[in-house]
Amino acid sequence: MEQKKRRFAVLTGGGDCPGLNAVIRAVVKTFLQNDCEVYGVLNGFNGLINDNLKLMDYAAVSGILPRGGTILGTTNRDNPFHFAVEENGELVYKDMREKVIENLRKYDIEALVVIGGDGSLNIGAELARECDIKVVGVPKTIDNDLPCTERTFGFDTAMAMATEALDRLHTTAESHHRVMVLEVMGRYAGWIALHSGIAGGADVILLPEIPYKLEPVIAKIQARKAAGKNFSIVVVAEGARPEGGEMSIARMVEGSFEPIRLGGAGEKVAQAIEEQTGIESRCTVLGYLQRGGSPTAFDRVLSTRYGVAAAEACLRREYNVMVSLYHDQIVTVFIQKAASKPRQVPVDSEIIRTGRQLGLCFGD
Amino acid sequence: MEQKKRRFAVLTGGGDCPGLNAVIRAVVKTFLQNDCEVYGVLNGFNGLINDNLKLMDYAAVSGILPRGGTILGTTNRDNPFHFAVEENGELVYKDMREKVIENLRKYDIEALVVIGGDGSLNIGAELARECDIKVVGVPKTIDNDLPCTERTFGFDTAMAMATEALDRLHTTAESHHRVMVLEVMGRYAGWIALHSGIAGGADVILLPEIPYKLEPVIAKIQARKAAGKNFSIVVVAEGARPEGGEMSIARMVEGSFEPIRLGGAGEKVAQAIEEQTGIESRCTVLGYLQRGGSPTAFDRVLSTRYGVAAAEACLRREYNVMVSLYHDQIVTVFIQKAASKPRQVPVDSEIIRTGRQLGLCFGD
Amino acid sequence: MEQKKRRFAVLTGGGDCPGLNAVIRAVVKTFLQNDCEVYGVLNGFNGLINDNLKLMDYAAVSGILPRGGTILGTTNRDNPFHFAVEENGELVYKDMREKVIENLRKYDIEALVVIGGDGSLNIGAELARECDIKVVGVPKTIDNDLPCTERTFGFDTAMAMATEALDRLHTTAESHHRVMVLEVMGRYAGWIALHSGIAGGADVILLPEIPYKLEPVIAKIQARKAAGKNFSIVVVAEGARPEGGEMSIARMVEGSFEPIRLGGAGEKVAQAIEEQTGIESRCTVLGYLQRGGSPTAFDRVLSTRYGVAAAEACLRREYNVMVSLYHDQIVTVFIQKAASKPRQVPVDSEIIRTGRQLGLCFGD
Amino acid sequence: MEQKKRRFAVLTGGGDCPGLNAVIRAVVKTFLQNDCEVYGVLNGFNGLINDNLKLMDYAAVSGILPRGGTILGTTNRDNPFHFAVEENGELVYKDMREKVIENLRKYDIEALVVIGGDGSLNIGAELARECDIKVVGVPKTIDNDLPCTERTFGFDTAMAMATEALDRLHTTAESHHRVMVLEVMGRYAGWIALHSGIAGGADVILLPEIPYKLEPVIAKIQARKAAGKNFSIVVVAEGARPEGGEMSIARMVEGSFEPIRLGGAGEKVAQAIEEQTGIESRCTVLGYLQRGGSPTAFDRVLSTRYGVAAAEACLRREYNVMVSLYHDQIVTVFIQKAASKPRQVPVDSEIIRTGRQLGLCFGD
Repeated sequence: MEQKKRRFAVLTGGGDCPGLNAVIRAVVKTFLQNDCEVYGVLNGFNGLINDNLKLMDYAAVSGILPRGGTILGTTNRDNPFHFAVEENGELVYKDMREKVIENLRKYDIEALVVIGGDGSLNIGAELARECDIKVVGVPKTIDNDLPCTERTFGFDTAMAMATEALDRLHTTAESHHRVMVLEVMGRYAGWIALHSGIAGGADVILLPEIPYKLEPVIAKIQARKAAGKNFSIVVVAEGARPEGGEMSIARMVEGSFEPIRLGGAGEKVAQAIEEQTGIESRCTVLGYLQRGGSPTAFDRVLSTRYGVAAAEACLRREYNVMVSLYHDQIVTVFIQKAASKPRQVPVDSEIIRTGRQLGLCFGD
Repeated sequence: MEQKKRRFAVLTGGGDCPGLNAVIRAVVKTFLQNDCEVYGVLNGFNGLINDNLKLMDYAAVSGILPRGGTILGTTNRDNPFHFAVEENGELVYKDMREKVIENLRKYDIEALVVIGGDGSLNIGAELARECDIKVVGVPKTIDNDLPCTERTFGFDTAMAMATEALDRLHTTAESHHRVMVLEVMGRYAGWIALHSGIAGGADVILLPEIPYKLEPVIAKIQARKAAGKNFSIVVVAEGARPEGGEMSIARMVEGSFEPIRLGGAGEKVAQAIEEQTGIESRCTVLGYLQRGGSPTAFDRVLSTRYGVAAAEACLRREYNVMVSLYHDQIVTVFIQKAASKPRQVPVDSEIIRTGRQLGLCFGD
Repeated sequence: MEQKKRRFAVLTGGGDCPGLNAVIRAVVKTFLQNDCEVYGVLNGFNGLINDNLKLMDYAAVSGILPRGGTILGTTNRDNPFHFAVEENGELVYKDMREKVIENLRKYDIEALVVIGGDGSLNIGAELARECDIKVVGVPKTIDNDLPCTERTFGFDTAMAMATEALDRLHTTAESHHRVMVLEVMGRYAGWIALHSGIAGGADVILLPEIPYKLEPVIAKIQARKAAGKNFSIVVVAEGARPEGGEMSIARMVEGSFEPIRLGGAGEKVAQAIEEQTGIESRCTVLGYLQRGGSPTAFDRVLSTRYGVAAAEACLRREYNVMVSLYHDQIVTVFIQKAASKPRQVPVDSEIIRTGRQLGLCFGD
Repeated sequence: MEQKKRRFAVLTGGGDCPGLNAVIRAVVKTFLQNDCEVYGVLNGFNGLINDNLKLMDYAAVSGILPRGGTILGTTNRDNPFHFAVEENGELVYKDMREKVIENLRKYDIEALVVIGGDGSLNIGAELARECDIKVVGVPKTIDNDLPCTERTFGFDTAMAMATEALDRLHTTAESHHRVMVLEVMGRYAGWIALHSGIAGGADVILLPEIPYKLEPVIAKIQARKAAGKNFSIVVVAEGARPEGGEMSIARMVEGSFEPIRLGGAGEKVAQAIEEQTGIESRCTVLGYLQRGGSPTAFDRVLSTRYGVAAAEACLRREYNVMVSLYHDQIVTVFIQKAASKPRQVPVDSEIIRTGRQLGLCFGD
């Protein structure tokens, strides 16, 4: 009698991130190569609630490695413990955990691979804790601010895109004797701003981790002018804030996915510089251009390693963990630990010091 | 007795544009190869007023072909006929044409190559008409809206950058079931929006040439949703406006270079779509990313052809003309004719029809 | 009673070329938008012989615009009038035109869109002439050497790739004081070599159109060295040949698609330069990297225009033509005329003169 | 009395590598910011022998961060202990160490930063050991095969370029039902082949570390064909060799820089596949395209960190070390240890296992 194959599922949750498809492909291929079956859950946790799964085969993941986005769809709203339903014309929030359990049972799914950021990983951890669902997490965010992993996939691509933007702005700044400000993503952590700023030869980098004062920023720009460089490049993380200013937004509470609109951090800096130096200053907001598009080769390799490792964890029944990069090796960590507060840039880190040695201003 | 060499000058005026350095290089090399001398005027017309010129040699233009920006610097403010000077703490506008004439005489410069958009070319034409200065123009604008030439350099690069941005937004739109709006440059003419929209597979393209109604835009997005495509891509030229709405800005009057800030055309469309369809809609403003960076191979070839042709016109003493692309040949046209009203996309052109055949919505 | 829909078919033949998918998409969407049916023929003429067609819908062409290759598959071997069949262990060539006619009738196909180079277009013309099949051609070749059209799709992408390669080689040449030779495609015509050479700042460009002598090449490199530039960049079309040398291959006879291997044109030049100047010289053969990958924005627009125009020609029953670019407009020309001898670079063209003005050496 | 400034020198040796300029810039800026003087040695060790140094200032390194190549020039031939000199028309090798010592004394240079691969670092170590010259090394090689560091700068860019090439070849392979072979650099170690192969979705990867058999390669390609995938992608490191075959070249002996030409590893594999499967197979040799061009953002950050760290080591008088990446931190290691035998891919490493889980064939 033929033995029944083990069955798994995979979903992608939260914002778009280059490398999602590469992870999906690696997860699916590893399961198939090891004689298991794997379902793709469509549109994140929504698909688990609304029974929207499809069986994956090799053809389903053929050719997706270099492509941005996720073939499974995603949403950054749907939380099974707090799920928005319209009733009598009003939105009410319901606990749908039973639906999730029911659907996973229906397909006889042994464990669930959750590819997501802090929100999705928190939900994964809660499903494990509260509903006894077996979960393996894969850390995803372009911001690189997930704790318990040295690097998330998507970050290298976002940082590369921001660097390319800085290269473009550089020529215009230099030709026009202007200050060009680039606002990049990073609400709680300035990894993109820091790395792209170093890579793009910025003169000023403002991070959420270092509340900035205007004086040193202005002084840097004027020192450059005095030295015959009448242009400057400034990188501002969207979560950068002036000293004394409150962090403009509270951390999203666990499980709550109301879209929060920041905005304006870069424009604010550009206006202040123009007013105080008299040099024309212009702000560009990179926005969604950091999230889409084909992943870099680095991110494709990292995503693939994560995907294989997540499936391998399932295969050996090591559950309720997140795969993680530690000293350039893929390891596993408890998922509860993984989804806690954001990992910020240490203000005394070597790479900040590298910037200071080059004469870069961090607004302090 | 050794004969004195003929002497020329070259300047770049107006906004940054990929290919400026390629034109400068071609102008300078052609003059040097033909045993002439050539001065670079720094910072556009400002350098002619303030005697800021430098003699160019091969080393000065070595390696600049692939680089964005302009090694000569530029400004989009300085008009010799209407030049801002601070007097007693106030800005007053003065006629500095005598300074220009004096400086050109001082260096014994026979003719001036002006690489610029409508503003700079108008000044060039006025210098020719009013001051008897010999001028050859090179048409520069990423917007491709200069009359009397089929293509300006810089346009292909801007359009390519916008297309790359659309590729990136595409994956996010599809994964998130969103409407992604990209606002691109184009105040008076929608060439960038039209070409990048076609190249990037947009569903809706809104141009200054076709005042838009929201109804067909909404209908298009809903038709796609009904057909199972719950995402859409919309390209909006910054000068696009709703039917009945006035063109939000007047054409810059000749010689006036007050910076005009448009803004908001894309965001307006995104908000209207979200309100009327309930689909999350996000706007990205491409902005300066279209102006900087290395020119495409196409633009490098075109810039080089323009630069050589401009120097050749000088060599054969054909003055007060602009070089121009006509039926894929470089020709010359009278510069007065060149710098008139913007060349818009003909609303019945083949390429608009191409879009319509593909089911694209132009908002009409 | 519902009227039967008109039915068409589309195939891609010959070598890979960026933009094929963009043309297919435009052809298919235009037919569908105009209430027709369209079949994709798989693997070029092979699919017509072996009854390998599939009905196309919107989903079939969704997302293919930016992708290289052809979703229909292609071959550069299969000729219905001279089709290789294995019989008793030997290849014999058979006339399969009846099979083609039979299959087109079977599906009730009114006309066939052939997207291909000279070989495929010749077959298309022969099918029209000999078998009374209605054909519309779309000119495809990265070499840009098809007569009766000013530009083929794929050329801009190939040229851009070659230019990017030159940018890369430039830095190595300069750092190492070397001569770097890049061999690019172009058997009969040097369009890629010429355009990429201008765009990439080459010092020497060798084309099939201008049989080269080594003396001026060596002299150019030594003159650069004497002027302190101890590196040089040389672009060689694969079909470039020394003066007096025979054109190394005969033009492929009509209908014969034996693969011809050229090779060595670049290496030969590199060795000669190293021997005669003592400067280290290295050759890179770009090869297939010119054929694959995502088309440039320019090529996507051109491909889309061609595809729509080809379908439109079918819709208005204008048959046995090829769509063509003439003075930046899409027009139609008789297909017999289209597929004749290759269009070479005119040796006295403006763009060659542009190169000479910059001091470029063409080996003459 | 003003105190004399400390003085240092920096040189680049060996083959071109993306990121060299970024390191130079970081070294020079860090010295200048710390009130030291720094000389650039031109053309590697040749400049030390022939007294070819120039004092560097901020202007000298302005704008070089994103550029490929090295502004200091390089050579991969010149060894002070074994320096080729022409005497009576013959090459004789001489010991020029006294010249080096003399020139460093002449400029009163305290220590020398050597940016180079194993050859240059070996010379650096020998200068330290034999001549009491103070040296700090920076590990450079696109091959990533230097011991005592987890990553060399230049590798990420080379790997990204190879991945881009694979993306291009993929579309052609798929459209034409071909096997496309890409030969990449890697004489002793297969890092580029392994990473780009994973990132580019290769089916077969052949490395120097795993002598290959043809049988499993052929079996993999035929299994794909049987599964309906009638194309395959093969990545071959230039140093890959069949089982039983000798490693085609001996390791370059210390200090000897005779150019060694490998060649043919990829073509050999392509021919064998075509013969044994009957599927058309084509080989592309990526060659110098991996060495030139702008470094990736990742490499720019790494290069900058290395450069700053090398200067910092000098500043704190920590000599005869090489800066190195260890667990994502920059550390220092003894330079003698650094320049020993190449670091190969461990055949049981996680990333090889990752490939095997995806069904990739490594020829064993």
